[in-house]
Amino acid sequence: MRVSEHRIRRRVQFYEVDSAGFVHFSWFFRYMEEAEHALWRLAGLRIAPTPDMAFPRRATSFDYRAPIRFEDEVDVLIRITKIERSSIEYSCVLTVDDRVAATGTMTIVCVRTTPSNALLRMPLPDDIVERLDTVPVPSSH
Amino acid sequence: MRVSEHRIRRRVQFYEVDSAGFVHFSWFFRYMEEAEHALWRLAGLRIAPTPDMAFPRRATSFDYRAPIRFEDEVDVLIRITKIERSSIEYSCVLTVDDRVAATGTMTIVCVRTTPSNALLRMPLPDDIVERLDTVPVPSSH
Amino acid sequence: MRVSEHRIRRRVQFYEVDSAGFVHFSWFFRYMEEAEHALWRLAGLRIAPTPDMAFPRRATSFDYRAPIRFEDEVDVLIRITKIERSSIEYSCVLTVDDRVAATGTMTIVCVRTTPSNALLRMPLPDDIVERLDTVPVPSSH
Amino acid sequence: MRVSEHRIRRRVQFYEVDSAGFVHFSWFFRYMEEAEHALWRLAGLRIAPTPDMAFPRRATSFDYRAPIRFEDEVDVLIRITKIERSSIEYSCVLTVDDRVAATGTMTIVCVRTTPSNALLRMPLPDDIVERLDTVPVPSSH
Repeated sequence: MRVSEHRIRRRVQFYEVDSAGFVHFSWFFRYMEEAEHALWRLAGLRIAPTPDMAFPRRATSFDYRAPIRFEDEVDVLIRITKIERSSIEYSCVLTVDDRVAATGTMTIVCVRTTPSNALLRMPLPDDIVERLDTVPVPSSH
Repeated sequence: MRVSEHRIRRRVQFYEVDSAGFVHFSWFFRYMEEAEHALWRLAGLRIAPTPDMAFPRRATSFDYRAPIRFEDEVDVLIRITKIERSSIEYSCVLTVDDRVAATGTMTIVCVRTTPSNALLRMPLPDDIVERLDTVPVPSSH
Repeated sequence: MRVSEHRIRRRVQFYEVDSAGFVHFSWFFRYMEEAEHALWRLAGLRIAPTPDMAFPRRATSFDYRAPIRFEDEVDVLIRITKIERSSIEYSCVLTVDDRVAATGTMTIVCVRTTPSNALLRMPLPDDIVERLDTVPVPSSH
Repeated sequence: MRVSEHRIRRRVQFYEVDSAGFVHFSWFFRYMEEAEHALWRLAGLRIAPTPDMAFPRRATSFDYRAPIRFEDEVDVLIRITKIERSSIEYSCVLTVDDRVAATGTMTIVCVRTTPSNALLRMPLPDDIVERLDTVPVPSSH
């Protein structure tokens, strides 16, 4: 069974909260990555870099709607929106008590490292393509 | 003199680098914030939240072009691209040895906190508007 | 029922791992704090600072025995070893698959803030003292 | 010339400050590591892990005296107190405006990785021993 989306729940830790009392905006990207890696584990995959292959981020963004606070329980829903030859795109929604706190996007690419330390795009390996899928797109709007 | 852009140089620290040997993508947002706060200091301003006012982020993004590695010296150039009634927009370029590593954007809003803990947008105070300015837009392209 | 110890299990996240492939040593202190705060929640308490009271750390240490790696599941056991008038001492053991990875200690103090921004020690409030307890000390060795 | 101590000055960043308005206690260890790595660079050395050798921490501690706040400039003085066959010990003092904020210790060990992923202690390489030295111990007190 291919995996196309996954939701994790995680509690806000003290060291993630800034002096305004809000989760620092850089942490939202780490929450999104936690959900991404949990999705890969669910699919039986491991995203950790090896000497042969890594998955650096190509682009990422977040829109913030409402602050998240200490000890809040955050639901992080990540969805695969596109799989191409050497890249994967995700969208992400963070909610606290069913209220949307933020929405994000992320694109990762599959690369190998050359002896000169450059990164070269390579096609996603078959075992990854076979285990991941995109979420169905709504037929209208 | 109004400040519209600022550049800082900072060295990559060990704890910022992930197991692929690259600066973790969440750190780019912290580099951008460091440059933003240095720009505010240069303008004689302080961005720290007070009981009356805070500057949460409304949106942010990064496009990654090339990895940054341990002990690299990163130049972080931040520019104010728009100032509105209650928000400020920035663009940001990260370079290592004059090679572009990433480009980012960030929008912050000025808010006050209500007794019920909600955040209400408020106009930027005059002393902030008087000390910051947008970078000139090129006349063509 | 008073709480004197608590154990949490948490998975190692990618952003916690350094370029040697090990959890960075600074993260062990955050794992210990996560367990401490979970212990306080279990006791019906909240450790978050208020305008009147905060619990800064007075001292902390870790001895490292074995590396912890990406996606390991870490058991964090925290125990209250001493409660004094205005301070609490903890010990902590981190294990992965029942193998000890590290042992730590931490002392926190109860303080209030003066108008001049100094921190003054104050006695632990009664509701805290009534809900926390020290672990029994073994009778010998 | 052998290097036995080094001092860096660094400004407190926003993301290092917790909701009590103090630098989070885990950051002190990162400040100490920044000074350590700067000391190694000054000695012409590079502490980054290679496939053959790494320098994991064996023990570390901090005693906290006074809080450090946003935008404070922190002086971090690190000293080598002992060099043994396969380990190095440091002491560290953090000051803000010549007021001691914290004192720390750290012991690192030199290891190589075996094919089974275990870490084996190895002697410090000669080029490291030749470039580092311990600070003189005061003759009395």
